[in-house]
Amino acid sequence: MSSTYGDKIKISVFGESHGGGIGAVVDGLPAGIKIDMDKVLAQMARRAPGKDKTATPRKESDTPKILSGMLGDTLTGAPLCAVIENTNTRSGDYGNIMSCPRPGHSDYTAYVKYNGANDIRGGGHFSGRITAPIVFAGAVCRQILEAKGIKIAAHINSIGNVSDSRFNPVCIDDRLIKRLNSSSFALIDESIEESMREQVEKARMSLDSIGGTIECAVTGIEAGLGEPMFEGVEGVIAKAVFGVPAVKGIEFGKGFELSKMRGSQSNDPFEYKDGKVVTATNNCGGILGGITDGMPVLFTAAIKPTPSISQKQNTVDLQKKQNAELEIHGRHDPCIVPRAVPVIEAVTAIAVINLM
Amino acid sequence: MSSTYGDKIKISVFGESHGGGIGAVVDGLPAGIKIDMDKVLAQMARRAPGKDKTATPRKESDTPKILSGMLGDTLTGAPLCAVIENTNTRSGDYGNIMSCPRPGHSDYTAYVKYNGANDIRGGGHFSGRITAPIVFAGAVCRQILEAKGIKIAAHINSIGNVSDSRFNPVCIDDRLIKRLNSSSFALIDESIEESMREQVEKARMSLDSIGGTIECAVTGIEAGLGEPMFEGVEGVIAKAVFGVPAVKGIEFGKGFELSKMRGSQSNDPFEYKDGKVVTATNNCGGILGGITDGMPVLFTAAIKPTPSISQKQNTVDLQKKQNAELEIHGRHDPCIVPRAVPVIEAVTAIAVINLM
Amino acid sequence: MSSTYGDKIKISVFGESHGGGIGAVVDGLPAGIKIDMDKVLAQMARRAPGKDKTATPRKESDTPKILSGMLGDTLTGAPLCAVIENTNTRSGDYGNIMSCPRPGHSDYTAYVKYNGANDIRGGGHFSGRITAPIVFAGAVCRQILEAKGIKIAAHINSIGNVSDSRFNPVCIDDRLIKRLNSSSFALIDESIEESMREQVEKARMSLDSIGGTIECAVTGIEAGLGEPMFEGVEGVIAKAVFGVPAVKGIEFGKGFELSKMRGSQSNDPFEYKDGKVVTATNNCGGILGGITDGMPVLFTAAIKPTPSISQKQNTVDLQKKQNAELEIHGRHDPCIVPRAVPVIEAVTAIAVINLM
Amino acid sequence: MSSTYGDKIKISVFGESHGGGIGAVVDGLPAGIKIDMDKVLAQMARRAPGKDKTATPRKESDTPKILSGMLGDTLTGAPLCAVIENTNTRSGDYGNIMSCPRPGHSDYTAYVKYNGANDIRGGGHFSGRITAPIVFAGAVCRQILEAKGIKIAAHINSIGNVSDSRFNPVCIDDRLIKRLNSSSFALIDESIEESMREQVEKARMSLDSIGGTIECAVTGIEAGLGEPMFEGVEGVIAKAVFGVPAVKGIEFGKGFELSKMRGSQSNDPFEYKDGKVVTATNNCGGILGGITDGMPVLFTAAIKPTPSISQKQNTVDLQKKQNAELEIHGRHDPCIVPRAVPVIEAVTAIAVINLM
Repeated sequence: MSSTYGDKIKISVFGESHGGGIGAVVDGLPAGIKIDMDKVLAQMARRAPGKDKTATPRKESDTPKILSGMLGDTLTGAPLCAVIENTNTRSGDYGNIMSCPRPGHSDYTAYVKYNGANDIRGGGHFSGRITAPIVFAGAVCRQILEAKGIKIAAHINSIGNVSDSRFNPVCIDDRLIKRLNSSSFALIDESIEESMREQVEKARMSLDSIGGTIECAVTGIEAGLGEPMFEGVEGVIAKAVFGVPAVKGIEFGKGFELSKMRGSQSNDPFEYKDGKVVTATNNCGGILGGITDGMPVLFTAAIKPTPSISQKQNTVDLQKKQNAELEIHGRHDPCIVPRAVPVIEAVTAIAVINLM
Repeated sequence: MSSTYGDKIKISVFGESHGGGIGAVVDGLPAGIKIDMDKVLAQMARRAPGKDKTATPRKESDTPKILSGMLGDTLTGAPLCAVIENTNTRSGDYGNIMSCPRPGHSDYTAYVKYNGANDIRGGGHFSGRITAPIVFAGAVCRQILEAKGIKIAAHINSIGNVSDSRFNPVCIDDRLIKRLNSSSFALIDESIEESMREQVEKARMSLDSIGGTIECAVTGIEAGLGEPMFEGVEGVIAKAVFGVPAVKGIEFGKGFELSKMRGSQSNDPFEYKDGKVVTATNNCGGILGGITDGMPVLFTAAIKPTPSISQKQNTVDLQKKQNAELEIHGRHDPCIVPRAVPVIEAVTAIAVINLM
Repeated sequence: MSSTYGDKIKISVFGESHGGGIGAVVDGLPAGIKIDMDKVLAQMARRAPGKDKTATPRKESDTPKILSGMLGDTLTGAPLCAVIENTNTRSGDYGNIMSCPRPGHSDYTAYVKYNGANDIRGGGHFSGRITAPIVFAGAVCRQILEAKGIKIAAHINSIGNVSDSRFNPVCIDDRLIKRLNSSSFALIDESIEESMREQVEKARMSLDSIGGTIECAVTGIEAGLGEPMFEGVEGVIAKAVFGVPAVKGIEFGKGFELSKMRGSQSNDPFEYKDGKVVTATNNCGGILGGITDGMPVLFTAAIKPTPSISQKQNTVDLQKKQNAELEIHGRHDPCIVPRAVPVIEAVTAIAVINLM
Repeated sequence: MSSTYGDKIKISVFGESHGGGIGAVVDGLPAGIKIDMDKVLAQMARRAPGKDKTATPRKESDTPKILSGMLGDTLTGAPLCAVIENTNTRSGDYGNIMSCPRPGHSDYTAYVKYNGANDIRGGGHFSGRITAPIVFAGAVCRQILEAKGIKIAAHINSIGNVSDSRFNPVCIDDRLIKRLNSSSFALIDESIEESMREQVEKARMSLDSIGGTIECAVTGIEAGLGEPMFEGVEGVIAKAVFGVPAVKGIEFGKGFELSKMRGSQSNDPFEYKDGKVVTATNNCGGILGGITDGMPVLFTAAIKPTPSISQKQNTVDLQKKQNAELEIHGRHDPCIVPRAVPVIEAVTAIAVINLM
């Protein structure tokens, strides 16, 4: 009762890092839609590791095999199932975490929850690798959304103290969206790429890791989607976004900044523009009363630093029931934020399609 | 498909500000539990308006009438239904918003969603008044939780630029929880109350409103609750908290601050204390991999300024299809944050009981 | 997690026979639809007791009070809540069942499930009276369905060994539907009413009760509704129909008779009629592969005899932990079938609206 | 929103008869349980075709490959995913059904629902073959139930007019359960096997098919499971059982026979036996008020004749929009009932585990 999401389009994600394979079942997709599999693979490539020094050198062959739900390039209406085989897994790297949980990881909480029966190799079902089928599912969903004029784009909003420019909250250019959607280090202001990479490199050289934030926008979404209270757009998107490992915060529109503002500053005035009701500003992130107002939906997510670092850390030895020290020798991302961008886009697509 | 929450204990909230009554049905509560109705009413009193100048002078008689689910003071196991009658409603205050939606409010989005058929008087189903039955439901749930040693407390973390002290993340005193739970202006550091009230008063005098943040803690919660991915504790709590009107952001533990940290700083080291595994710090807010680690669960929510302000504002006239100006003359809270504290506690109780 | 149904239009039913009131919350109804409340009350009157000797002489004032979700006669889109106050309850009638569960009733199973904390007066939440809000909710849903050309009618298919004629499976007359919908003893062949009533009267005179079957038809339903496997039309309707107390069986189309047939007999041949694909027969009850084929949806439900009979019966004394004898002196229906007809129609409406 | 079931243990079934593979994801299984895979395969073998003349001569290699959720023979707590590859598919057999839907099949309804985009080869997602992963999931669930003393057995209650003996409703022998559980032609009274097979053979020789009924029992189930109204045991089991293709009716206990009975006959008297409350008879099938009473849960399902018959049948040509005749030449079961027995047991296991 866990790795599923949605009540219109249901996603059921399965897999463990070092098991036979990982994948997803997507139930409820409309029949007859053509899916461009190259575009799906392009999204998955953005998430894949091994592209550069910000990411783990581990290579994955993440080509999904479609078991059902497509005939040729067309959705059949039956549940779509894609499987990615697990290869290139070096289990030996994780030999000692059974007894010594890695700080900041799910090792300890999974150990308690599953009474020690969970597959700990590579983080098991908690591995970041499990986001690959999420990107697959999201890439299919976003093609359906794009046919309705809805686009989703995210960028690295910050890494450490280096920040990108933010989306123009009332008007986001289609060319920008296209550029971000095909980038593996997605930035609005590309001139800061170097200093951002420097942040990551510094962390990596210190055997450390670093966090960041991701800003995401949904454009072309009509007014009137979402429900009051518990099925409001904020809640529906938040539930999807917190499904991404390492996300520890989310804010819509101006978010936490609103808490320091006056109503006269934060209220977005309505006005007619080209015969259509718009807001002059978009501090609310396109959502009022849990319902879309027709402006871009905007949110920012906080990503904690990758917990796997090579420095010696204090932990406990659960077998010996005593304090212990731990050094992790696996291959890990010093900064997960660039690879998390397409994952955030994917869960947003899955959330938005469930609002329709 | 909207005003319901939960799959173990289901809450279904109904009512409109100026309709016949508001209330909630709570389905799935355990039979045989005694409920202290005085404690329930005490929680509802904390949320009720009219206590002082930070709140609207509107008085509500919010005594809930139990229609089913209790025999004497004991839960019967049947769905618990409580109804609060609507009284003291001056509909005339809202005469002009049918055509001119209030900026920052759900007026426009509800108008679009419901094709103009929604009850706009007092905000209808979007009224903050609908949080009264949520506090009722939460007050019942928290008594069940308390019997298991789980306590929930929240405080006004900030109003505008004035901030309270924060919870000690690794150890929260039961006396503090008790004091906060019975306060209608809940602060850890009570010495700042005056300067906080001053912020509100200044906003009120400027015919304006002001936002803030609320920090909430859950103590006594065991390790191992929650599920990986989409049913993780963060997502489950976030969905409940975003059900509260005016919430625009949520962060767990250090939240957005984590995005600026290194892994060596953010990782919470494990250690043995009195034979039990604890963490020396609690930057993760008691949640790793979506699952509780046994430390206090901590989160902070951002509350936007009350959108109802008495200043003249720009909006549109939906009937005349032209730009317009709007002055709101109703009775409104210049700052909703103090009254939102027990609501946040309530939805947290509802979320946590669904994790059990 | 029990008295709720639906994922598009959610019904949450509350109440206990002798509590403060009973009612239902219906969440997800479309805004702007006008509801004819006289028609709703007419449906509730069909279910109400005290009309004649087949039913209990107990009178109920079952006028529902609308608390929210309607403004004038129009749905607002907010959850619709209706409450029916409980009056005319003679608790003394039920004095002895706490210790001695009535055979065939939920007394014993509820006692075990709720550890004796449930409200046993009048059957508590298990009372047939709780079907009144279901009829209310169904009467609203069927008006929405009727606007789409979908009609629902049921009749007393049999009481004991006396059987009514059956629906013409391929063509059901609108006048027949109208007549059945306004009848409190709904029969296709009205000439058998007397002999049916005789069956009931004989049972009543023997201090006994008698069961029967109800056949229900849904006309005007388009082809293509429902989903394969677990959300097939049969399963969706069955779940709703088994929510009605005393239902112990359901069959679609020819149902159990199909088990004795050959495929060459049971297969419904397709043919074109007025340019539309129809089936020449309708043994499948309008459902193939869980999906409607455009023909009338037909099913029959089996209703067990009312378990409350005035004869002395063997039971146990749960307090004394020994065998016991029980005589029930309350007011009870010797045959619940006529009053169950509008309830079956109501849950069918609720099920069908969730298929749309 | 279709091929999934359950809210505690969720099953998501995927696959199409002639696609890349079929399988199931089972989410929510308890970690640490050992699964005997030989027993799982034994259940799948009971369902597999090609064993004798009652079944299609088509051979399947139905060995499931576990992709996740198990480490060695132990459940890890992560979603369990099993995939069965599709082999031995002769698509040519189905060349003409695109235009001419087979009477009694889902061809036409799926065509309407999916706008002709569904995979029609072998029935696509509606193929009986998709029950193989259901048997897999059920076989895992029943091992968990057996560890709690709950056993599930079904038998061929009738084929055509030949009937087996019925379960003793108050006491079912463990040896009988064991024998039925390992039989591929499960009968209580084995002496009737020959005359039953004769019924099937006669149908087969007439290029026809034949229906039947299956009786299923759940023993060792404690009193107090299930919920009132819409989550009653009857509804929960019915929803699962109607998920099995060809089921058109279900009755609990004496079912439709109850409709002809008096209350004095149908009520099951309570009595103490060995200090435990039991019922002297079990006409209610172990369920009162939707809740188990501790006696065996009993139900009977009606299975329609296999719609695929080799006789010439009337249908329509959807391309030419005219009436047509159809002869089906594929390999088909003249009677699906024997192979449906383990499928009914499997969905019952899935339903019962969701009641716990």
